[in-house]
Amino acid sequence: MGSAAFLRNCWYVAAWEHEVGPAQLFQRTILGQSLLLFRTSSGNVVALDNKCCHRHAPLSLGRREGDCVRCMYHGLKFGPDGKCVEIPGQTAIPSTVRVKTFPVAERKRWIWVWLGDPAKADPDAIPDMFSLEHPQWRMKPGYMHYKANHLLISDNILDFSHLSYVHEKTLGGSTAIADTRPKTERLERGVRLTREIRNAAPAPNHVKLGAPEGPVDRWWIYDYVLPGLLLLDSGVKASNPENRSGHTLHFHSCQAITPETERTTHYFFMQAHGFSLEDSSITDSLYNGVVAAFDEDQRIVEAQQQLIDSTPASEMMGLIADTALAHFRNLYQRALQQEQTESS
Amino acid sequence: MGSAAFLRNCWYVAAWEHEVGPAQLFQRTILGQSLLLFRTSSGNVVALDNKCCHRHAPLSLGRREGDCVRCMYHGLKFGPDGKCVEIPGQTAIPSTVRVKTFPVAERKRWIWVWLGDPAKADPDAIPDMFSLEHPQWRMKPGYMHYKANHLLISDNILDFSHLSYVHEKTLGGSTAIADTRPKTERLERGVRLTREIRNAAPAPNHVKLGAPEGPVDRWWIYDYVLPGLLLLDSGVKASNPENRSGHTLHFHSCQAITPETERTTHYFFMQAHGFSLEDSSITDSLYNGVVAAFDEDQRIVEAQQQLIDSTPASEMMGLIADTALAHFRNLYQRALQQEQTESS
Amino acid sequence: MGSAAFLRNCWYVAAWEHEVGPAQLFQRTILGQSLLLFRTSSGNVVALDNKCCHRHAPLSLGRREGDCVRCMYHGLKFGPDGKCVEIPGQTAIPSTVRVKTFPVAERKRWIWVWLGDPAKADPDAIPDMFSLEHPQWRMKPGYMHYKANHLLISDNILDFSHLSYVHEKTLGGSTAIADTRPKTERLERGVRLTREIRNAAPAPNHVKLGAPEGPVDRWWIYDYVLPGLLLLDSGVKASNPENRSGHTLHFHSCQAITPETERTTHYFFMQAHGFSLEDSSITDSLYNGVVAAFDEDQRIVEAQQQLIDSTPASEMMGLIADTALAHFRNLYQRALQQEQTESS
Repeated sequence: MGSAAFLRNCWYVAAWEHEVGPAQLFQRTILGQSLLLFRTSSGNVVALDNKCCHRHAPLSLGRREGDCVRCMYHGLKFGPDGKCVEIPGQTAIPSTVRVKTFPVAERKRWIWVWLGDPAKADPDAIPDMFSLEHPQWRMKPGYMHYKANHLLISDNILDFSHLSYVHEKTLGGSTAIADTRPKTERLERGVRLTREIRNAAPAPNHVKLGAPEGPVDRWWIYDYVLPGLLLLDSGVKASNPENRSGHTLHFHSCQAITPETERTTHYFFMQAHGFSLEDSSITDSLYNGVVAAFDEDQRIVEAQQQLIDSTPASEMMGLIADTALAHFRNLYQRALQQEQTESS
Repeated sequence: MGSAAFLRNCWYVAAWEHEVGPAQLFQRTILGQSLLLFRTSSGNVVALDNKCCHRHAPLSLGRREGDCVRCMYHGLKFGPDGKCVEIPGQTAIPSTVRVKTFPVAERKRWIWVWLGDPAKADPDAIPDMFSLEHPQWRMKPGYMHYKANHLLISDNILDFSHLSYVHEKTLGGSTAIADTRPKTERLERGVRLTREIRNAAPAPNHVKLGAPEGPVDRWWIYDYVLPGLLLLDSGVKASNPENRSGHTLHFHSCQAITPETERTTHYFFMQAHGFSLEDSSITDSLYNGVVAAFDEDQRIVEAQQQLIDSTPASEMMGLIADTALAHFRNLYQRALQQEQTESS
Repeated sequence: MGSAAFLRNCWYVAAWEHEVGPAQLFQRTILGQSLLLFRTSSGNVVALDNKCCHRHAPLSLGRREGDCVRCMYHGLKFGPDGKCVEIPGQTAIPSTVRVKTFPVAERKRWIWVWLGDPAKADPDAIPDMFSLEHPQWRMKPGYMHYKANHLLISDNILDFSHLSYVHEKTLGGSTAIADTRPKTERLERGVRLTREIRNAAPAPNHVKLGAPEGPVDRWWIYDYVLPGLLLLDSGVKASNPENRSGHTLHFHSCQAITPETERTTHYFFMQAHGFSLEDSSITDSLYNGVVAAFDEDQRIVEAQQQLIDSTPASEMMGLIADTALAHFRNLYQRALQQEQTESS
C-alpha cells in the first residue's frame, strides 16, 4: 500500500487562511517538504523552502522584518521572492544565495501550494470549494493530523459503507447505507459517487440537528478527485412528504487530504449546513458531531496502518464495495507514473 | 544473538484462560502475528488472524455477534472458522473471503496456539504443566512484558548462578548457588538441570514464607524445553534433620516464554506452593516475592539487550556455566533450520 | 554532513571529575562505546568497556568490591586492569576472560579518555585547559546533552556571527559582531580566530555583570582544535579610556565537544571570570547567563539537525563566514581518512 512518492503537479491545501496570520511565520510540512508560509504587507501568502540555504537552520525560527524573513542563526535575510537581500559581514550577495519559493493560491478560506513544476501551476485548476465561503452555507473549519498514509484516508472516503459500522452511533444509524450500492461514475481525475437510501433510520447526529426520527430518505452525492479532494452534497428528509415541512437537512462538505510524510497526513475538513443559517448553535453542533465521527475514522484508520506496518505484507481482498477506491488508486498510480516519466 | 525467525511448529502459550472472557475480543501478537482470540458459546477458544482480509483493519476493534465477529470498518462478518458469512451490500460471498484460523488448545489454565503447519498440531505434545491446576498446589497467575529477545530470557532461566547475584536479596541469599555447578542432562527437545546446595543460607524470600534461618539444604530441578517452557521443582529444608519439622518448603513453577516480536517477549509464569495450601497469605506472599525477583531479571536482561543493540557487535565469551544455555540455543537453531528446510 | 565514523586517536573529555565519585560506577557512552568509569582507592580513574565479556550485561549495574567491579548478572569479577579475577563455579580463569580498558588522564577538572590505539595515547597532547583550575579564574562547571551531530556544534562555535542573532538578548546585543569578519589563522590541528569590535553595544549578559552600558570594545580570541576543543579568551571594556576604571570584564572559557553517537553529543563547558574573584554572585550570574545562551544554541542546532534529517539531502551554501568551519571540517575529514588508512 502507499508509495514512496507523491503526486507533485497538483495543488495541495497547506493551511486554513486563519492559520497564517499577518505577523506570523507558519511552518507546515507537506509531501516531506518543510514550508515557511507568511503573509506579506499586501496580504498575499508566500511559501518558501523553510531550510535556510546557508546552514539549513529553519527559517520558521527566524524573524519577520517587513516583508522579509531573517534567519536567526547567522542573520541572512530573504525577500518574499526567496532572494537573499542581506548577508551579515559580506557585501556581495551572489544570486545563488536564495531559497526556493512555491506557487501559492488563496481560494475562499484555504491556502493552496504547488510543489511541482511551477510552469504548470494554474490556479484555475483548483476545484470550486464553494461552501467554504458562501452566503447560503455556514460552517466551522476543522483540521486533524493523521498517523497514516494518505491513501488509507482516501480509501475511507471512497467507501461510505463504513458509515453503518464505524459511525453507527454518529453519522450512520442504519445498515441500509452499507447494504445499498452507490452509483459510481468515472471522472477524468476522480470518481463521482451517488448513494441514496429510502425509508431508513436517520443518523443519530442528524436527529440532534432536528431531523425526523421516523423513516427518512438520505443521500450522499460526491466527487473525489486527485490528489485527494472531496466535495460532498448530503442530506436527510422525511420519507413521507406530509411530514417533511421544515425538516429537510441539507449539508455540503469540503475536505482535503494532504500528505505530510509517507506515514502522516493533514486532514482539512468542514461540513456546512444550508438550513437555519442564523442559528450558530446548529453550526456548533454540526461541527462537534463531525469531529466526533472523524475521531472514529481516525481510530480505525490508524489501527489499520499500524497493523499493516507491524505484520507481514499480504494482499487485500477486493470486494464490490471497493470499485471506487480501486479506481481512484489506479488513477493515482497512473498519474504518478506519468509524472515520473515526464521528469526523467 | 536472536534470529530473524522463530520456531513455528510448536505450541505457544498465548494467554491465561481468564484473559479471554466470554464476551470479549482479545488481541495478542505472538511471533509477529496479530491474533484475535475469543471464546465461542461452547466455551472453546478460537484464534483468528486479527487482520480483516478485506482492508486489513483489526478485527479486535470489531464486535461479537453470537459466535461470529464483525469487522467494524465495513461490516464483514466472520464465523469462528474464519469464513466470511456476510458482506454488506454483496450477496455472493466467495470462499476466498476468509481469515486464517490457528489451532488452539486450552490446557489447565493456559491457552496454547499453534502458528505452524496445522497438520502437525498435536495437543498431546503440550507438556503437562500440572501445578497450574492441581489440588496439591496453590498459585497466582503472573505475566510480564519484556523488551528483549526471547532467547536472552531463556539464557537467564538456563543459568541459575544468576540467583546469587541478580536475586541476592530475594531468591538468592547465598553465593553457594553460583559456586555449585548443576548436573546437566540433554533431553530430546531441551535440557534437564539439577542443582543442590547444602548447609547454606536460605533465600530472603523463603525466610518470609517460614523457611528456617539456620543452615538449609536447597534444590532446583528443572526441565527447559523448546520453544521456551520451564517446569521447575524447587525447595528448601533445614540441613539438620532435627530442625526439619514443618519447615520444608516445596515449590513448583511453570513458565512460558512466547516471542511477541524480535525484540519483545511475553512471559507467562507462576510459582505454586505445596505446603500451607489453605493459607492464601502464603500464596500472596509467594507471588509478590516472585514478581519482585522477576523485576530484577527484567532490569538486567533489558539492559543487556539495550547494550547489545547500541554497541558494535562482539562475541560473547563462553564459560562452563553456559553449558545448558549453549545446548538449548544449539537445539533451537537446529530445529529452526530443519523447519526452514522442510518448508522450502 | 556528519560521518559514520569518529576520530579515535584523540583524547576526549568523558566526564567532569566530580561526576566520578569514590564509590561510584559511572556509565557514559562516547563515540558509541559504552564506558564504565570508576575511581580506584588510589584516586585514579579507570575506564573499562561497560559490556561484560561473558553475556554482555552492563558492568555499570554491577557492584564495586574494593578496586574491582563485579558483574551482577552471573558474578564475574574484574580488576581495574580489566582482567577477570573470579568466575563463580569455575576455578580456572582463562586470560581471555577480560574486558577492554582505555587510557585515562585526569587533567585539572576533566577526565579524558582515549579510545584509539593505546600506543599513541600521550597525555601531553592534551591542551592546557588552564582556566578550569587556576587561582586567577573562577567558574562553575557546565554540561549539556545535545540531540545533534558533533560537527554541527563545532560549526556553531566556529562562526561567532551567530552571537548577533541567536544570542541577541544574551551574549550578543549588537549586529556589529556579525558584521565584522574575524581574522582566521590555520593551526596544525585547528584554527585560531580573532574578532574585535569597537564602539559597540555591550552584551545584555555583560551589563548584568557590571559592563558599561555606553560604547564598548569587545573581543573574542580563540583556538578550536581537533577533535572539538575550545579555548576562548574574551572580554569587554569601555571604548573611552576615561570610563574604563574597574569596568573591564575579562573571561576565559574551555569547552569540549564529545560525540556520544552519530546524532547525540556531550557538551562540557565553563566560562571563567578573571575579575571580582571573591564574589561568588558573579560566578553564579556568569554561569546562569551562559547556560541561558547555550540553551539558545541548542534550540537552533537541534532544529537544524531535525530539518536536515527530515528533508531530502541538499547542499549547504558556502559563505565567507564559513571560512573557519570549512577549514575545520576539512581537517577533520583528512584526519579521519588518515586514521582509516593507517588502520587498514
